[in-house]
Amino acid sequence: MSETGPRPRAAADVPALVRQARSGGPRAVARLISLIENAAPEVRQITAELCAARRSEPAHVIGLTGSPGVGKSTTTAMLVAAYRKLGRRVGVLAVDPSSPFTGGALLGDRVRMQDHATDPEVFIRSMASRGHLGGLAWATPQALRVLDAAGCDVILIETVGVGQAEVDIASLADSTIVLLAPGMGDGIQAAKAGILEVADVFVVNKADREGAQATVRELRNMIAMVRRPWKTPIVSTIAARGEGGEDVVDALAKHLDHMAASGELERRRLARAGDEIEAIALTALRAGFTGLRGGDRLESLAAEVVAGDTDPYSAADRLLAAL
Amino acid sequence: MSETGPRPRAAADVPALVRQARSGGPRAVARLISLIENAAPEVRQITAELCAARRSEPAHVIGLTGSPGVGKSTTTAMLVAAYRKLGRRVGVLAVDPSSPFTGGALLGDRVRMQDHATDPEVFIRSMASRGHLGGLAWATPQALRVLDAAGCDVILIETVGVGQAEVDIASLADSTIVLLAPGMGDGIQAAKAGILEVADVFVVNKADREGAQATVRELRNMIAMVRRPWKTPIVSTIAARGEGGEDVVDALAKHLDHMAASGELERRRLARAGDEIEAIALTALRAGFTGLRGGDRLESLAAEVVAGDTDPYSAADRLLAAL
Repeated sequence: MSETGPRPRAAADVPALVRQARSGGPRAVARLISLIENAAPEVRQITAELCAARRSEPAHVIGLTGSPGVGKSTTTAMLVAAYRKLGRRVGVLAVDPSSPFTGGALLGDRVRMQDHATDPEVFIRSMASRGHLGGLAWATPQALRVLDAAGCDVILIETVGVGQAEVDIASLADSTIVLLAPGMGDGIQAAKAGILEVADVFVVNKADREGAQATVRELRNMIAMVRRPWKTPIVSTIAARGEGGEDVVDALAKHLDHMAASGELERRRLARAGDEIEAIALTALRAGFTGLRGGDRLESLAAEVVAGDTDPYSAADRLLAAL
Repeated sequence: MSETGPRPRAAADVPALVRQARSGGPRAVARLISLIENAAPEVRQITAELCAARRSEPAHVIGLTGSPGVGKSTTTAMLVAAYRKLGRRVGVLAVDPSSPFTGGALLGDRVRMQDHATDPEVFIRSMASRGHLGGLAWATPQALRVLDAAGCDVILIETVGVGQAEVDIASLADSTIVLLAPGMGDGIQAAKAGILEVADVFVVNKADREGAQATVRELRNMIAMVRRPWKTPIVSTIAARGEGGEDVVDALAKHLDHMAASGELERRRLARAGDEIEAIALTALRAGFTGLRGGDRLESLAAEVVAGDTDPYSAADRLLAAL
């Protein structure tokens, strides 16, 4: 309303928030993730503080992905219940890569999570991944670190995904569940190419529906064609009735053991740290691109390419030289 | 078989290939796109030659996206037929972002395109987008340039997409079609957040099915809530019977006119060139990261982060300083 524009937000007290998050304070957890989601200037400090105080045994990070309609939210709710039965503290991060525009989307879906909303041992959070190049890669590991600091034994990352999102999730998780349901049209066929390499556990949900056995068979044939040390198990569930949750939890525990024994867990964690460092570095570099002035700034170079006065490789050379 | 490893591939004769592609030679077009897909060393030269000889009026680039099962391939085939009736030369690029691993996936689906396979005025090509950070952003504009040089008036980019892929496609296309079908479960709801900003034309396929009117109504209500100069039209089709193709083509032509008149077309093309330059520059930088030696190379820094000896921001600083 005034001519000076919006009042600058007071800087967050990061050490206090991190302290509160570490003792399991849900509001501090939510606040820290919001700061990360909004790429607040405090993020660097948050990350440094969380890294300095990290636990020796980090949470088991589980990705859950599948086409719309397969029952992701219901399955997540079922897994939360199964883990709570074992006394585990659980974090849920619902990442919505389709929403670079609207923060906190898909909250409607979270209704299915309301059973757990008042449980102090369950942290649930939606997060939109803004911007396209590496949005998920940048913010998700940082949000995971917050949930880890809050003492979660297990963190479920749920994403609406056909395509790229699956691959991104797989690179962030220790174990990736690919969720399918019978009668989803050409879902399996379309997904075939990427899904097989990505799935550590297949879950066929809505197992009481027609076609469930055929879906399991099709998956089994696909798995048989791939030679990997880990034979991806197929678990049938009826998440809406809570059936099969313990079987999924068992399969995930076996996968984690296999990963730890084979050294693959360490390898994935190293790769993840490398991806995160790279994403941070690239974000800084991109900020540098737009900060340039004169004929070698990105906008001027783009205009030259559109006008046919140069090609994008020569333009990229000039951009890098100007940096 | 020999100890010297695979024989080095002979370098492609780029000027000859570009010359052949420009006179509409399908094999040259296919070869150039393969070189791009495989990130061959010739790509820079290919791009430079294509840019130097670009046409004054580039092709209308149309993105087509939608969940599995909505009928993307059938709709693409229908649109190709509609454009061919108008005498237009058409390129089809089927991008599969779920497949960073297996090149040329989804070819099974292309069966529906066989009607057009022998038409010399139609160029059809599948392309896998390898690697995650910016794979699509890097290769697709280059492949578009090949099809453009081959004299295509219209280029359709088809992608399996819920989520990120939509946003990526929208940033590559002049016009984006979001394809829906009735009875796709929570498809619309899940997609809602991202879809509305991305769609220039909505197509409700399988319009003879139950629920088609409800889907159209739901979309209309969503569109009514958004204030944009372009009111996204909704076209009903039955692609399997070829019904509605001309209506979609009409809607796309109107959208292109609107874009040209409002200056938005120029703005999108500038943004696209900027994205491409940036993707090339970032690819070069990432190659630089892995080329570093000693304690500041990415692998060493990742190990330090995993061990808790540093945080990813400090690691990114060191990486950039070492570059």
